[in-house]
Amino acid sequence: MNPIAKELNEVIQNGNPNLMSMMSDVGKNLFFPKGILSQSAEAREKAHKINATIGIAKEGNATMALPSVMANISGLPAEQSLTYAPSFGIPGLRAVWKDAIYEKNPSLAGKEISLPVVTNGITHGISIFADVWVDPGDVVILPDMFWGNYNMILNVRKQATIKHFKIFTEAGGYNTAAFEERVKEEAAKNDKIIVLLNFPQNPTGYTLTVDEADRIVQILTEVAESGTHVIAVADDAYFGLFFEDNVLKESIFARLSGIHPRLLAVKLDGATKESYVWGLRVGFITYGCTIDTDAEKVYDALARKTAGGVRGNISNASHLSQSIVLESMKSEAFAAEKEEKYKILEARAKKVKKVLADPKYQDAWDVYPFNSGYFMCIRLKTVKAETLRVHLLDKYGVGLIALGDTDLRVAFSCLEESDVQLLFDTVFQGIADLS
Amino acid sequence: MNPIAKELNEVIQNGNPNLMSMMSDVGKNLFFPKGILSQSAEAREKAHKINATIGIAKEGNATMALPSVMANISGLPAEQSLTYAPSFGIPGLRAVWKDAIYEKNPSLAGKEISLPVVTNGITHGISIFADVWVDPGDVVILPDMFWGNYNMILNVRKQATIKHFKIFTEAGGYNTAAFEERVKEEAAKNDKIIVLLNFPQNPTGYTLTVDEADRIVQILTEVAESGTHVIAVADDAYFGLFFEDNVLKESIFARLSGIHPRLLAVKLDGATKESYVWGLRVGFITYGCTIDTDAEKVYDALARKTAGGVRGNISNASHLSQSIVLESMKSEAFAAEKEEKYKILEARAKKVKKVLADPKYQDAWDVYPFNSGYFMCIRLKTVKAETLRVHLLDKYGVGLIALGDTDLRVAFSCLEESDVQLLFDTVFQGIADLS
Repeated sequence: MNPIAKELNEVIQNGNPNLMSMMSDVGKNLFFPKGILSQSAEAREKAHKINATIGIAKEGNATMALPSVMANISGLPAEQSLTYAPSFGIPGLRAVWKDAIYEKNPSLAGKEISLPVVTNGITHGISIFADVWVDPGDVVILPDMFWGNYNMILNVRKQATIKHFKIFTEAGGYNTAAFEERVKEEAAKNDKIIVLLNFPQNPTGYTLTVDEADRIVQILTEVAESGTHVIAVADDAYFGLFFEDNVLKESIFARLSGIHPRLLAVKLDGATKESYVWGLRVGFITYGCTIDTDAEKVYDALARKTAGGVRGNISNASHLSQSIVLESMKSEAFAAEKEEKYKILEARAKKVKKVLADPKYQDAWDVYPFNSGYFMCIRLKTVKAETLRVHLLDKYGVGLIALGDTDLRVAFSCLEESDVQLLFDTVFQGIADLS
Repeated sequence: MNPIAKELNEVIQNGNPNLMSMMSDVGKNLFFPKGILSQSAEAREKAHKINATIGIAKEGNATMALPSVMANISGLPAEQSLTYAPSFGIPGLRAVWKDAIYEKNPSLAGKEISLPVVTNGITHGISIFADVWVDPGDVVILPDMFWGNYNMILNVRKQATIKHFKIFTEAGGYNTAAFEERVKEEAAKNDKIIVLLNFPQNPTGYTLTVDEADRIVQILTEVAESGTHVIAVADDAYFGLFFEDNVLKESIFARLSGIHPRLLAVKLDGATKESYVWGLRVGFITYGCTIDTDAEKVYDALARKTAGGVRGNISNASHLSQSIVLESMKSEAFAAEKEEKYKILEARAKKVKKVLADPKYQDAWDVYPFNSGYFMCIRLKTVKAETLRVHLLDKYGVGLIALGDTDLRVAFSCLEESDVQLLFDTVFQGIADLS
């Protein structure tokens, strides 16, 4: 094992030995190298005469750049766009994002969390999380409706075992009883369980109510108390798009951070959907846990392992993307711009609710609970989802996603409010055609 | 195993069964999902009325975007910058890059290679390559001077065993004898060996002469012929920056592609250094091998596994970055712009050679062979590299990288031609100070 990895492990072990029990073998071996990187950092500070440490090309004291490249970048010099960003992410963005996490999550007041490490989008956040914390065979608990790529990231690439529970009760709420049963069953069989909590959820568009969130927190605390290590991962990709009053409008990460020594809370989020910049690939990993020693030092050690994982996987995320996200967040118009887009999406969600309240649809489908995010799903009662999907596409030019035998996913994020009625009436007609 | 993965494995097995023998366990399980992605692709084509499949937000038929984000992007609409790029990379860039590979590598004429898959820079190319082709314990052969991050990517994250050989002969050429000895020793002990060939090399700035390249190709062919599977990976990060006449001015990938059924050639390259866009993170993975059946179909299967790995790790690389690189490559000025920058770097390399020819330095250091790339190294004869590095930084404000006990790396890529003499005289003075 590299001596720097050993040092980091000791810092973490002293801060909370449970963290080392939860860490993967890869995670234990990860470190952030000194060598060239720290020598370059020293040179940046002290090499006022000649700095020949830099692994990029310079010209007349500026970053070398092709005019045909700079033509598509506006207002950001090559130093903020074309040079390498640190594996940790650019410092300004990490600081601004951390501040924003506190603002968006009132329950974090008084709790210490780590400085976020930048990832290449939230998928990459899950993947790097898995490198540091998931060993082959580890159990990850997910609902039975879930984003398919979790399987590729966690099972195919990392050989985790995924266990499911039924997401909703018949009454139309989150199935905390099924969650509890599955979590406690796995906790009885394993020293460590990983629970992936994704709200607003893909594909259902569901976010926990405050009561349901309280119950989830209680269950996970009981499991940690009973002796099993719990890693609770919040995938907050769609954070902020909450459209009803009774839902939890902060990340469950805020409630889970620092509540039990055997519980590590991990927040995976990003500008991807929060700033409407999907293809720019800017995500973050943030930790919240109980630490007996200097929290800053332990969080720094966790960040170094995490950034070491980033370095050994992609070196760093796009500097240009990070700068664009940072500049946007710092602009005066940012809050108002976000609010405007939120209102548009909220109006669509409410319109979907209103249209679907029509009793004429009730023999054709059930509506899965939804209150947030980009998506909602219906469960067809009389025709197969794939058959209907193909029929709607071929006959009406209407595109929806079929999930399994009975479910259709509707992305109202890309649906004009004025098309909502027409959409569901077309689905209804399509079912009639096939009956 | 997922049925799509099985199908891909069969296609590859039929095309060349050796490829399946070389593939990692993760690689065998990788696939590119149909499900939501292929349903969305169908909808893009047919959903002329309403398309509610898309996992982004739209507004009035365009991509939703914050003005504060678009402020830093010039000449590219949100559709070419903010939407998700495919996991494979954007089609236009893949096609242009493939054409450019043929142009830059005359020996590929008449050989079929795969359509490149886009990665988040070349580090990510190595990492995704390793996901698909490297099992824990597999042997990777590298010279004794090498880029440190190979260790993090291949050993720490993927548990490969790295074996070294002495890079240069005393006479100052590439040590093909040491290479042969190490390769054949490992081939005798393993069913599969992985050889990582990085030219122009980091940190030495060395590229093989044509004769040395011929010898490497011969050795690897002999090993494949003798029954061991060989994966020869060309890390062409610094491709094109060749500053002397006798060096191999194409990728060794071109010579290794399709020459033996038990030899898989993999090309990892990128716009990173070729287009001076380090922080944009645009790299590529390309395969070249012997295929008995329809090459296009087998390469497509390999690309699907590779892009499945990308999807399960980062989803996709920055769309904005890919569009910028593509627009630049398509611009009329591109070739001339690149030539201009090449000339600047070439002049620096030649100046370094000229300055170092001065016999006054010969008691202070030896110069490692170099003829290409960003870097060159010297081996100190009388003082420790780290001691000298710190002294030069503190006393003269001159920054260099210390490697091991005796070596200093000079990045002439970021050094003005007019500073070269001063730099080496300062190093010389620093050594005198310490003696």
